[in-house]
Amino acid sequence: MSNAESFADADADLNRAALEYHAKPVPGKTAVEIKKPAATQRDLSLAYTPGVAEPVRRIAAEPSAAYRYTNKGNLVAVITDGSAVLGLGGVGPLASKPVMEGKAVLFKHFADIDVFDIEVYARHPQEFIETVRRIAPTFGGINLEDIAAPHCFEVEQILIEELDIPVFHDDQHGTAIIIAAGLLNALELQGKRLEDARIVVLGAGAAGIASIRLLMSLGAHRNNIYAIDRQGVIHTGRRDLNPFKFGIAADTDKRTMRDALVDADVFIGVSGPDLLPPDMLATMAPRPIVFALSNPVPEIRPEIAWGVRDDMIMATGRSDYPNQVNNVLGFPFIFRGALDARASRINEEMQIAAVKALKDLTHEPVPQSVLDAYGLKALAHGPEYIIPKPFDPRLRERVAPAVAAAAVASGVAPAAPAN
Amino acid sequence: MSNAESFADADADLNRAALEYHAKPVPGKTAVEIKKPAATQRDLSLAYTPGVAEPVRRIAAEPSAAYRYTNKGNLVAVITDGSAVLGLGGVGPLASKPVMEGKAVLFKHFADIDVFDIEVYARHPQEFIETVRRIAPTFGGINLEDIAAPHCFEVEQILIEELDIPVFHDDQHGTAIIIAAGLLNALELQGKRLEDARIVVLGAGAAGIASIRLLMSLGAHRNNIYAIDRQGVIHTGRRDLNPFKFGIAADTDKRTMRDALVDADVFIGVSGPDLLPPDMLATMAPRPIVFALSNPVPEIRPEIAWGVRDDMIMATGRSDYPNQVNNVLGFPFIFRGALDARASRINEEMQIAAVKALKDLTHEPVPQSVLDAYGLKALAHGPEYIIPKPFDPRLRERVAPAVAAAAVASGVAPAAPAN
Repeated sequence: MSNAESFADADADLNRAALEYHAKPVPGKTAVEIKKPAATQRDLSLAYTPGVAEPVRRIAAEPSAAYRYTNKGNLVAVITDGSAVLGLGGVGPLASKPVMEGKAVLFKHFADIDVFDIEVYARHPQEFIETVRRIAPTFGGINLEDIAAPHCFEVEQILIEELDIPVFHDDQHGTAIIIAAGLLNALELQGKRLEDARIVVLGAGAAGIASIRLLMSLGAHRNNIYAIDRQGVIHTGRRDLNPFKFGIAADTDKRTMRDALVDADVFIGVSGPDLLPPDMLATMAPRPIVFALSNPVPEIRPEIAWGVRDDMIMATGRSDYPNQVNNVLGFPFIFRGALDARASRINEEMQIAAVKALKDLTHEPVPQSVLDAYGLKALAHGPEYIIPKPFDPRLRERVAPAVAAAAVASGVAPAAPAN
Repeated sequence: MSNAESFADADADLNRAALEYHAKPVPGKTAVEIKKPAATQRDLSLAYTPGVAEPVRRIAAEPSAAYRYTNKGNLVAVITDGSAVLGLGGVGPLASKPVMEGKAVLFKHFADIDVFDIEVYARHPQEFIETVRRIAPTFGGINLEDIAAPHCFEVEQILIEELDIPVFHDDQHGTAIIIAAGLLNALELQGKRLEDARIVVLGAGAAGIASIRLLMSLGAHRNNIYAIDRQGVIHTGRRDLNPFKFGIAADTDKRTMRDALVDADVFIGVSGPDLLPPDMLATMAPRPIVFALSNPVPEIRPEIAWGVRDDMIMATGRSDYPNQVNNVLGFPFIFRGALDARASRINEEMQIAAVKALKDLTHEPVPQSVLDAYGLKALAHGPEYIIPKPFDPRLRERVAPAVAAAAVASGVAPAAPAN
């Protein structure tokens, strides 16, 4: 049986299992539960009329009391217009629902955050923005999800500015944060510095552009970063760039991915399957770093890549290879920290705090429970462990407080939440 | 201690208890729970990527598959603009949150329906309508809540017409259905017929107008129904009526509540405290029916009313008197029936089916468990039992299937849901 055939069989099995999982014994993955007593007439007279009038009056008098008397402070909207769902494209709001519910499962499982999945029918980004703004009183935070670039950038920016609760587009910053944490570790291991590294980013969508922005904030030089879109290298001489691409354009003579990869230190693929040809990988600098994050099929398959280079450090988006870049390492704990601090936004300081917490965690001994969860005998900081494992209970203990502390230090959260 | 003082003490106790209930041990009343396995990497590969892609593809190909693979089919939005919250008025979306969460508790407790409470900041009804329409893909049904009249009528009507899921303004129809069920029983007991009854309705807001409409559908004559607003009787000669009030205007010479109540058979108060003077009650026809539903203080206090008339049947909105008109007798089971049938709307046939199921239930022997729940020795169809008790487990068994059957019979639900 060829590799392709065995992939196809595994896919068919997974698809069957996934449909069964979603449909049985009841449809869907999340439900609502009552977290206060509701058995007696007295209980209900407190939960609803007449008792409920008093918390209403308190909130009407002092809006922050909503954090004391309602679910708001632990409630995040995972919200999409269905315009860029997984690798499937603009399937629309209804078809995106399993993904948004899945995200709710992850938020709850990893960080005990309640999530309402909200799927929005919007013909234009402006309609989507209006809708999020209008329902925002409901929530303590907004996680934007699967919104197509380039609209996602302005959607997020406008909502951040208009709302007084954290707004976070995970496809941008969540991905960027995990990439940055892994990359900092990989550079250290390869004896390189971010300030000098030549970095090729294939894919200039939400994740690519946000990653480049974050890496520049961390010290990478714009003119050392070659983002590649369908027209080749994004350089300052191009006349077809939207403002978001222009913001990351390099002043360079390089025009093609092939040009850019010669002597490059880092390849970050956030694009599509099999888009990094082995002969290009061969031209990269010594001790290269290859993040081939397209999922499920990477820009270059690890087996092929290792056949071309044995001096690289590699990460993928897959759980069945070392160094999985997985957003679940970030968003649950970033929101946990932001909600715990009652931050008004998730700013760059908080994102960088998350990067550092994730990076540092891989330098510590790995608990036995984590080894057991992954069936591993040992795991230690090194080329095959530059990124924490999702089922590591220390993630919440480290990342959330780091984010909360950065919120306070950067002035977007009160020194002590007023609860 | 006067009555007024003891009321005030009881209110202070209730308010303290309600704040404690809402705040401790954690803020709010509802949370989200995961209803599928989520412990292992395999579980999460089904709940989220890569497995989740397959249900997405199925729904993209066939929208109704959303009912098979997501929470949509059991998920209702309880949604408000905060323009008419309890008796507190337009406190706005944020302050309305405890009420909406409370409604979620009732939906879940009584009918196992999952509810996302959604509080909408909308400057105009059109913005509210747009918002509900845009987030509707998320839900299997929409319960509009605490929206001010007269906008609530057009808001509901437009959404019913535009959406393919049930939209129900509980403050209108929920209240109307319970009133109608109780009134049919009371008329029977008093030896009167709805077709002949002279009915005074004090309060021409959401509940008043919807109740009159439903009573007309059940056989009451428009010219026998005197709705009273601040300007007096709503009659066809008035030039200040909005279309909703005009639709219930009587062709009559009566001009004041005092005129209207002379020889009236029925008084329905959906207005405010102490608005029915005892001397007017005295002028009603023999064997009158008095529904004084203002909460917590009725239009006339039962102790006072019984001092004026001993031939009446009385209902209030309070749980500490017989015959409580309580919406919780309706909405959980009406939505349960509509969702179970996968009805595209909640039409009048379904509302009337709920009325009849509620009416009929009081004619049956009351189970011991219900007597125990209310500390009663006996309870039987009669002047003090014209409306079922909220903690009666038969409500779900009777009302929901009746509503579902009416949905199928009236052509708004498939004969057998296509799950």
